[in-house]
Amino acid sequence: MEEKNGLIIVHTGNGKGKTTAALGLAIRAWGDGLRVLILQFIKGQWKYGEITALNKLNEIDGRMELRRLGKGFQRGAEDKTEHIEACHEALKEAAAAMESNNYDLIILDEINYAVKFGLITVDEVKELLAHRPKDLHVVMTGREAAREVIDMADLVTEMTLIKHPYQQGIKAQKGIEF
Amino acid sequence: MEEKNGLIIVHTGNGKGKTTAALGLAIRAWGDGLRVLILQFIKGQWKYGEITALNKLNEIDGRMELRRLGKGFQRGAEDKTEHIEACHEALKEAAAAMESNNYDLIILDEINYAVKFGLITVDEVKELLAHRPKDLHVVMTGREAAREVIDMADLVTEMTLIKHPYQQGIKAQKGIEF
Repeated sequence: MEEKNGLIIVHTGNGKGKTTAALGLAIRAWGDGLRVLILQFIKGQWKYGEITALNKLNEIDGRMELRRLGKGFQRGAEDKTEHIEACHEALKEAAAAMESNNYDLIILDEINYAVKFGLITVDEVKELLAHRPKDLHVVMTGREAAREVIDMADLVTEMTLIKHPYQQGIKAQKGIEF
Repeated sequence: MEEKNGLIIVHTGNGKGKTTAALGLAIRAWGDGLRVLILQFIKGQWKYGEITALNKLNEIDGRMELRRLGKGFQRGAEDKTEHIEACHEALKEAAAAMESNNYDLIILDEINYAVKFGLITVDEVKELLAHRPKDLHVVMTGREAAREVIDMADLVTEMTLIKHPYQQGIKAQKGIEF
């Protein structure tokens, strides 16, 4: 098997900071001259502030691309069909982006949750990762990452909620959404 | 006691992502129009890529300020005196920045570790926080956050290392330092 230098990084757990730390990695990588693509598997997790900031960086040199592909979730027992389709579209775009060799870092935001929720299978994720370029770094976020994904990863961090303002009756703050 | 709307957020634990998630919060806040100050209590934790990216954003409108105040650590039993002085200088700058009311978000990077390592006391940190403006958000990073700091916080996330590439003999990668 070909040796891979790119890292597979997983941010999982029930706490805040999984997507936020991925955003931090994206910024750091951009600052180091890498070409970054963020693919969103579940819409609605990203806030106005980060989209604005990423777009500003992308305007500078086009190396910070964000594609919002998944569908947003409503609460309740809605039909999963369109979520399944949206996530498979995101998988296809991820595969095409990997094949293009146009990126050094690809963030698959909320892909773990898409697996957990049954929108894509873990085998589809393994297949995607198996075909990645050898120097590409991949970050996968979302709670309850599958065991097989953790087994394939080089770096896994679990974000655990210790204390949350909602527990104390404090409302979310603009610019500091959590 | 005056009611505070600003949040105290703590990122602690032995895992990666504490500073990286703080960086992500800084980016999000900047994108939402907030004025951000990052004060570094221990030097050497921040990498070239993120400094470059933050400076680029700061060039746009001056709302993303980074001050690298603490000293870097060498391994070995060196004299703590200059580290203690550097951290007290950082505390003073934090207090002055809070008093200025020029910021909406202040990140006290590695302040938890500075307490743990005995460079500043937890009482000095409590005193600093007690005098913050009521709408200011404060993020405090570093492993082994003191119990008193967690008690004062609104949102606490613990980053736990589940798997690390060093364990597998993989070297750090430029742009994806961890």
